[in-house]
Amino acid sequence: MIKKLLIANRGEIAVRIIRACKELEIETVAVFSEADREALHVQLADEAYCIGPTSSKDSYLNFTNIISVANLTGTDAIHPGYGFLAENADFAELCRECSITFVGPSPEAISKMGTKDVARETMREANVPIVPGSKGIINNIEEAVSLAEEIGYPVIIKATAGGGGKGIRVARTEQDLEKGIRITQQEAETAFGNPGVYIEKYIEDFRHVEIQVMADSHGNTIHLGERDCTIQRRLQKLVEESPSPALDPDIREKMGMAAVRAAEAVGYTGAGTVEFIFDYNEKKFYFMEMNTRIQVEHPVTEMVTGTDLIKEQIKVASGETLSLKQEEVEFKGWSIECRINAENPAKNFMPSAGKIEMYLPPGGLGVRVDSAAYPGYTIPPYYDSMIAKLITYGDTREEAIARMKRALNEFVIEGVSTTIPFHLKLMDHETFKSGSFNTKFLELHPVMES
Amino acid sequence: MIKKLLIANRGEIAVRIIRACKELEIETVAVFSEADREALHVQLADEAYCIGPTSSKDSYLNFTNIISVANLTGTDAIHPGYGFLAENADFAELCRECSITFVGPSPEAISKMGTKDVARETMREANVPIVPGSKGIINNIEEAVSLAEEIGYPVIIKATAGGGGKGIRVARTEQDLEKGIRITQQEAETAFGNPGVYIEKYIEDFRHVEIQVMADSHGNTIHLGERDCTIQRRLQKLVEESPSPALDPDIREKMGMAAVRAAEAVGYTGAGTVEFIFDYNEKKFYFMEMNTRIQVEHPVTEMVTGTDLIKEQIKVASGETLSLKQEEVEFKGWSIECRINAENPAKNFMPSAGKIEMYLPPGGLGVRVDSAAYPGYTIPPYYDSMIAKLITYGDTREEAIARMKRALNEFVIEGVSTTIPFHLKLMDHETFKSGSFNTKFLELHPVMES
Repeated sequence: MIKKLLIANRGEIAVRIIRACKELEIETVAVFSEADREALHVQLADEAYCIGPTSSKDSYLNFTNIISVANLTGTDAIHPGYGFLAENADFAELCRECSITFVGPSPEAISKMGTKDVARETMREANVPIVPGSKGIINNIEEAVSLAEEIGYPVIIKATAGGGGKGIRVARTEQDLEKGIRITQQEAETAFGNPGVYIEKYIEDFRHVEIQVMADSHGNTIHLGERDCTIQRRLQKLVEESPSPALDPDIREKMGMAAVRAAEAVGYTGAGTVEFIFDYNEKKFYFMEMNTRIQVEHPVTEMVTGTDLIKEQIKVASGETLSLKQEEVEFKGWSIECRINAENPAKNFMPSAGKIEMYLPPGGLGVRVDSAAYPGYTIPPYYDSMIAKLITYGDTREEAIARMKRALNEFVIEGVSTTIPFHLKLMDHETFKSGSFNTKFLELHPVMES
Repeated sequence: MIKKLLIANRGEIAVRIIRACKELEIETVAVFSEADREALHVQLADEAYCIGPTSSKDSYLNFTNIISVANLTGTDAIHPGYGFLAENADFAELCRECSITFVGPSPEAISKMGTKDVARETMREANVPIVPGSKGIINNIEEAVSLAEEIGYPVIIKATAGGGGKGIRVARTEQDLEKGIRITQQEAETAFGNPGVYIEKYIEDFRHVEIQVMADSHGNTIHLGERDCTIQRRLQKLVEESPSPALDPDIREKMGMAAVRAAEAVGYTGAGTVEFIFDYNEKKFYFMEMNTRIQVEHPVTEMVTGTDLIKEQIKVASGETLSLKQEEVEFKGWSIECRINAENPAKNFMPSAGKIEMYLPPGGLGVRVDSAAYPGYTIPPYYDSMIAKLITYGDTREEAIARMKRALNEFVIEGVSTTIPFHLKLMDHETFKSGSFNTKFLELHPVMES
């Protein structure tokens, strides 16, 4: 078993990982940038070291300094959290070279899933449904035009090295497509150092549904059901829930099995998420991408399955077999997560960094708060604007929503603007309550207007 | 369904009830004493009214003022919480006369269980095991002496109107007994206006195990398993857990069924708790008393059964049938509650009222906090010293304890002394961890001695 673990991250996910380690009696090492000296993860860890200045590039992405702290402290494992180095195959490789356990999949699995066109081909071979589109990257515009005519417009142009909503462009005409490919290639070259793009049929009316998978190093892979992340604003998830109001048992079963095949196809180990486009009109789903790390929204899965995913990650990374078999995974109740961001929803979600003057999270039955905030904490403007995840659990979706409303109403955060008023309006919105909506929900129903 | 509910209480239980009402979309009316103007329950309720000065007698026990607020506000139900008027048959009767739903059992059921000797006889008739002792109250000393010789010393003298550890005295000799009866009678006359006492065999080596029951007004009564409240200090519970580490499935089943018979014997409705003396050496249990109200430690039952007991109370009081049948009650995992009191454990648990300068409750998976505290809140010295209930849940007792340790370590309460350091030592105590102890645990192992 891992004895000492370095958390190469900050914010609520660093706190989340430290909590799991404390419960497993694993020593914890926090790292922090100069802007994060007063951060909660620094206070909660057994040891904490500054790894560089404010800029992420020089601190949370600084391979050398992080590995140095790991060596200095006798750390035997590194948990990357999400973001930063979590899907960096080179970092995972460096950990391996330094004989440090990387809590995550192998560099090979990260690479395969991180390169979108390779992932697509791997999924095709593993019999995981993919959206009709190009085989591998586009070699020239003519090829793209001919393919787009075959599969029909609109199509979507994607940078193979992109992700999280970046490096994506929709084309509705041949003219759009030619221009879009050139621009996306240029942007991808600049942003990711890889100009490769591919095209797919653009499905406009869909839900974002993803499957949590978990695999050990002994050949066992299971899934822990789905999360519905359809409520998004500019491709950023705002609210997630499990189960999905849109899946029936048959689709759920098929999607779960497809996700397991996806993970197995790349020799996956640890926690991962296979994201799908769910075309609910046709009752069909298509592989979107696999995130080779723990995700922000993992708590809703924990609530409905009763599994501690972070502990499971750590145990699997330590060489243990999975703590449960597929047939032992039970689903009970409903869970919803609202991301509470330091943003002003009335001003186009403008970031609102600053000092939290008053802070009192909600409590009571069925309410969970994952946060790194505290009274008097100053939110630095340099990183993610998420300050808390508010998760509720209930017997039914209605109860989870009612509980979310009362918890949002209780949540006191003074000194900065937050997305709490947005979430309150959303929870009262008839369309949201009906469970029947797609990823354009917020475009169609701007809940913050008036 | 109840539309508007008055909460005749304060502190965390008032907050707990308000939370349930918000989720059920029931309007809430808070009442408060002059000392509680800044209390959280006053802030969270839809309406709030002052019902008198600081003294409980003039405020939270003031029938007239509470009923006046209820009438004034068009309230159709009153929830008494625990303590104060919760087991006052006269108040329940007054509510009935005023056509206000009392969220609790009938005045008759309260009376029967509140009069200890009547309760004992009722249990005897209902085939619920009782401790060997007198039939009804003691008429004269000679009768007591003769009975004590028959059942054997030590015996315990109990005031029939007593409860919660008050009006109790142990006698180990005939001399003790004669003197004890006289003193207990005098004290009971003064404290409760009823000098009646009875005697029972005194079982010294036992665990306090209680069963949660719930009954509707349609003749259905179920139990929701046990809580183990063996960790006590001077008869005050400090830590509770469910399930009990001491019960086997056979005893659990028998105790549950006995509790259901106890409730049925008095025509019980609503939530109640049947407390038992569990003689684990003999694997026998005996009726101790029934608390005809919700209890402080109800959350551990909620965690392991997935039932919201306060909502269930309100629904049953509204005339609904129980939401689940006995065979649908499922038990999963382990839950522990630590009562965080504003007391100094290093100074003999001396109360420590004052201003909470800094307050940050713990969060994350498996952690629940029920509290009425907030940063800047001044704890009045006039009432209960409990400021928060920290409840953890885990797959196993070991996980619930590990989680409690990390949550206690995270809990920030500055400005007053609390029992957090006591609980931290307890969670690390080998005997506590073994699960094998009796009600004298704290006398035998004074965990705060370093």
